[in-house]
Amino acid sequence: MLNRPIRTLIAIALILVFAVTTTSADEGMWLFDDLPTGHLQQRYGFEPTQEWIDHIRLSCVRFNSGGSASFVSSDGLVLTNHHVASDTLYKLSTAEHNYNQDGFLARTHEQELQAPDLEINQLVAIEDVTDRVNAAVQSEMSPDEAHRARRAIMAEIEQQSLDQTGFRSDVVTLYGGGRYHLYRYKKYTDVRLVWAPESEIAFFGGDADNFEYPRYCLDVTLMRAYEDGQPARVDHFLSMAAGSGIKDGELVFVAGNPGRTQRILTVAALEYQRDDRVPYVLDFLRRREVLFQQFALEGDEQKRRVQDDLFGIQNSRKSYQGEIQGLQDPKFMKDKRLRETQLMAAIAADGERAETLEAWNTIEQVHRQRSQQLGQNAEFAGQYYRIANQLVHMAEEDLKPSAERLREYRDSNRESLEQQLFSPAPIYDDLERLKLADSMALFVERRGGDHPLVSEALRGQSPRERAAELVQATQLRDVELRKALSSGGKEAIDACDDPMIELAQAMSSDYRRLREMSDEGEELERQAYAEITRAKFDVEGTDTYPDATFTLRLAFGTVSGYHVDSDWVAPWTTIGGAFDYETARGGRDSWVLPASWKEHQGAMDSTLPLNFVCTADIIGGNSGSPVVNRRGELVGIIFDGNIQSLTADYMYSDESARAVSVAAAAVREALRVVYDADSLAEEMGR
Amino acid sequence: MLNRPIRTLIAIALILVFAVTTTSADEGMWLFDDLPTGHLQQRYGFEPTQEWIDHIRLSCVRFNSGGSASFVSSDGLVLTNHHVASDTLYKLSTAEHNYNQDGFLARTHEQELQAPDLEINQLVAIEDVTDRVNAAVQSEMSPDEAHRARRAIMAEIEQQSLDQTGFRSDVVTLYGGGRYHLYRYKKYTDVRLVWAPESEIAFFGGDADNFEYPRYCLDVTLMRAYEDGQPARVDHFLSMAAGSGIKDGELVFVAGNPGRTQRILTVAALEYQRDDRVPYVLDFLRRREVLFQQFALEGDEQKRRVQDDLFGIQNSRKSYQGEIQGLQDPKFMKDKRLRETQLMAAIAADGERAETLEAWNTIEQVHRQRSQQLGQNAEFAGQYYRIANQLVHMAEEDLKPSAERLREYRDSNRESLEQQLFSPAPIYDDLERLKLADSMALFVERRGGDHPLVSEALRGQSPRERAAELVQATQLRDVELRKALSSGGKEAIDACDDPMIELAQAMSSDYRRLREMSDEGEELERQAYAEITRAKFDVEGTDTYPDATFTLRLAFGTVSGYHVDSDWVAPWTTIGGAFDYETARGGRDSWVLPASWKEHQGAMDSTLPLNFVCTADIIGGNSGSPVVNRRGELVGIIFDGNIQSLTADYMYSDESARAVSVAAAAVREALRVVYDADSLAEEMGR
Repeated sequence: MLNRPIRTLIAIALILVFAVTTTSADEGMWLFDDLPTGHLQQRYGFEPTQEWIDHIRLSCVRFNSGGSASFVSSDGLVLTNHHVASDTLYKLSTAEHNYNQDGFLARTHEQELQAPDLEINQLVAIEDVTDRVNAAVQSEMSPDEAHRARRAIMAEIEQQSLDQTGFRSDVVTLYGGGRYHLYRYKKYTDVRLVWAPESEIAFFGGDADNFEYPRYCLDVTLMRAYEDGQPARVDHFLSMAAGSGIKDGELVFVAGNPGRTQRILTVAALEYQRDDRVPYVLDFLRRREVLFQQFALEGDEQKRRVQDDLFGIQNSRKSYQGEIQGLQDPKFMKDKRLRETQLMAAIAADGERAETLEAWNTIEQVHRQRSQQLGQNAEFAGQYYRIANQLVHMAEEDLKPSAERLREYRDSNRESLEQQLFSPAPIYDDLERLKLADSMALFVERRGGDHPLVSEALRGQSPRERAAELVQATQLRDVELRKALSSGGKEAIDACDDPMIELAQAMSSDYRRLREMSDEGEELERQAYAEITRAKFDVEGTDTYPDATFTLRLAFGTVSGYHVDSDWVAPWTTIGGAFDYETARGGRDSWVLPASWKEHQGAMDSTLPLNFVCTADIIGGNSGSPVVNRRGELVGIIFDGNIQSLTADYMYSDESARAVSVAAAAVREALRVVYDADSLAEEMGR
Repeated sequence: MLNRPIRTLIAIALILVFAVTTTSADEGMWLFDDLPTGHLQQRYGFEPTQEWIDHIRLSCVRFNSGGSASFVSSDGLVLTNHHVASDTLYKLSTAEHNYNQDGFLARTHEQELQAPDLEINQLVAIEDVTDRVNAAVQSEMSPDEAHRARRAIMAEIEQQSLDQTGFRSDVVTLYGGGRYHLYRYKKYTDVRLVWAPESEIAFFGGDADNFEYPRYCLDVTLMRAYEDGQPARVDHFLSMAAGSGIKDGELVFVAGNPGRTQRILTVAALEYQRDDRVPYVLDFLRRREVLFQQFALEGDEQKRRVQDDLFGIQNSRKSYQGEIQGLQDPKFMKDKRLRETQLMAAIAADGERAETLEAWNTIEQVHRQRSQQLGQNAEFAGQYYRIANQLVHMAEEDLKPSAERLREYRDSNRESLEQQLFSPAPIYDDLERLKLADSMALFVERRGGDHPLVSEALRGQSPRERAAELVQATQLRDVELRKALSSGGKEAIDACDDPMIELAQAMSSDYRRLREMSDEGEELERQAYAEITRAKFDVEGTDTYPDATFTLRLAFGTVSGYHVDSDWVAPWTTIGGAFDYETARGGRDSWVLPASWKEHQGAMDSTLPLNFVCTADIIGGNSGSPVVNRRGELVGIIFDGNIQSLTADYMYSDESARAVSVAAAAVREALRVVYDADSLAEEMGR
């Protein structure tokens, strides 16, 4: 599944590296204002009009919880993956109603359920602000000064844009610092659940089949954007293609928000990933996986509470596992080394560019330092601690002008931050204890049990005892208290004797120390990659795309099968195939189709495609991306990549790597036949 | 479950540290030739006769696969845990007959199934050889010389004893080097499976309930020792107590082979465990757990193949998890530090002993080095690689006299080694690929992908490709080839072009380098702990017991419940309680009683005890230990410790830590009523 790596990554350690590369075949996650029109014309005889491009762009929405989606009706109906919506499904569920597992259908607008804290974004405008950002950073500045100057100008541009237009405004760093674009978004913060299938069919085959193909999943959910308490009226939405919707070899486009690729990485940076960071992340993920599995064994309700976390962790683990397998293949690194040597040789040959070679050393230095700091953090896990930590830092940051604050606390981001901070989503104390205790235990491991900060955090108790005490005593479950602390500023925080707030305060200076170190490394890296990007543009041309940044991109490719050794894997599976597959797997574990499907098996068109693959270049974050044909009609919804695609973080291949989609035709068929939801199928125009 | 930590530990990194401590209450894993008779007399008014002691000792057997057991009939019937026998059950199973899961019953001797490679040991004699060992090691020797001299004298003593008596002869290091005892064992290498219940009742509650209490498990299996193709006639065996067999508050004894405790550890050594080693081991275990879980998802047969490994890993993970929770409790370390300071102060006060304080520094230095070497190894996982590695090193070592070889290759150990090496137990290529590939990937992580030894091991391929190639090409599945290579010596190995042998050869010098480093650290540690032990004896007296060494010990305690917060946990559960508990847990996951139990529910005496707890001091390796009353009658079989007992590695407590046993009465009842095995119950004298 393709969305979660992002969320997990943010939680672990967000490294901002972005890339540029030379393209071939169907490679690329292209900027909407810089599409490879020549290549498309040449390879496929297709020339998108500006109208076509704008229509696709405005039909897309980003789920800020981590994923992509599209409008599919004029009344704001939004189609995404079940596993993208699951964050909301989970937050809406209770011990009595498990929508995540059992599905949901609203028969009227009144029955649609409001997501407690979801923000979705529609990209309405793009502006190049590279010169303005770069002008604010002087070459004689120290990395720390440069970082602050850059952060300030970005905040200023965003605030001006917000004031002028009212749109959410984000300056996006492209090509690792080679370009800066201002993205303006229309925000929808009232989003409601309309329909979800059972997890049995949304995630048929479970963890075992995740990232595998052939697949048989109806990994989709419908939500609806609201404005002023009414279904949002939208001018741009995607209509479903007729019939089965797809043809073998057909050109298709994927519009969505790939989260992160790292194709520009130097060999030194890749070695750091291979030998240090990815192994560390995998250890962390497996630790969490086992922890959550154990919790799930305690009972049905515990299982429900932890299910969403567990899925996210297992999904990331499988994805990183694929990544490290690619990185550990000596052939991969050899190839990367060869390309780097060629580029460096070309740069060295150009006398005026020779000093650019220094950038590679800088990147190596930055990673050497990162390697030493790996696993050092000053935060604990769980919702209560996250809230406490944000309140403490927000109060401190708000003493400064917006442009000088840590980036997430700038004024222009406040509304989005508060939506999270004041979310009424349920918090489960037993799960909080589990996460907090384990993160405290990890903190002891990383710092050593005799570290003064460990003593301060534990106060003479074991991690388990201390976590139990903190969760029992904190009042942060009360949203009104969070609001009061937020509006009360530093004075309110200092006067607050909530033990979770006090803990976050105790950790604060170390948190800032680590943050500064990491910001400084990031700035050095940003300057180095900007330098390399400029040289690369000179040597290889600018007909390329930047590494993914969880912003809107267009990818393209053809519907096509592939070989695994001597076996041919067909490009799509069918609805009938799902029933055969259930039988083949013995109808056990996660290979059990829902009762609703079994009941309506005879009435469904068993020959319709259920899932299909194409060669488009995607990555985590693309989950829920619409797949459209030349006419801009919806033919599918991306929900996964196959196992061969898991090295896409570092390189694209169309040999056997494929993006995996739910066929739009299967969504229509299921809505009509299985879920008795004709009106939704009709609203989607079919 | 209490046996597996040992096996896993051997696989990971065997650290030989042993301990001495001051005792209180029911603490202690006592040597059979140095029992706390005074304490028993004073506390319980019980004075065991020499006859009683010898009878218990000779009724016990050690499972060298990791566990304890006892003779329970004159015809060599051996009673142990299901999870101790599971190694054999697993090796005897096939895709068609899964004895581990479905159970087994031999109705005649002819139907009893021979274990492919099991050796069990009966301790027939103990001799103190401390002076002889110490006389061989001169104080002016370097650690390396001292290590070699000590290894040589131990091998010499063992060889002489073997030659003179024909018994397996092991010099055992006690008190971390303070004492050396020669243990002579009668070996049984023809051991056959007689009866095993279904895993559903043997491991009722599964991983979730492991190390929990109350419990409802029939974790037992019967095997039979053979000599010369006939059931072994044994003079000493345990008879079952009549009736329910246990009384609240009754004094009981546990005779078995606790694997390892580390109660003597200095604070520096404990800090190393807390901050370095245990976190590392847990990362490794979770890595393996997730790997094996994924493999099990591939199908029923894969699940069967990996089940035994997966159980072992999960068992160790849960055990280490309990350990680290204890270590990370600041109160625990504070207490240890206080005791250490008191001892050091007493030593410092004694002018003649003052130089002993240097021993603490030595131990700290050794652990500092270990911390740096943590995770460095030069071995890969899987049966084929283990066999290759042993063949390669055996050929090299055999060029030297027995006394100069790496300890496991000494002549007196050859028979036991060859039983393992030439085992006809099945090896599954898919599981071999999985383990080999993952251990190669781990090797890349630990050494870094550009390390020359990594290049040599991978030969330009990814870990997965290389592992697949090696497993496909090796001929080591052929036991005759192993025998030929073993008898052919170095010449045969050098001439062999089996790629697994070649790989082990390529790793050999690094393996030896690491082994030497670790042996040297161990020698320094041994000398330091010997020094501390001598000082401790002087200060605190000798009325104590050495840390566990997987050799026969006697523990004692009373059958007694305990408090968890304000709740009272009763000392035993009943057969009827198992059915109630199944209902309470919803009869799902691992809480499903076998069909045989449900069928015979009405016929069983539901009031009989099923499991019970006592305060005896046990640890991993004690699994299968007989629990006997004052009359030496069998009342139970140890199979677990509760979660509160998981810090027993470092300290004993009787507050709420308990040893958990299967009640012998339940075994008898199940044999008769559920398994229609009256003749076995009769053979056991009841």
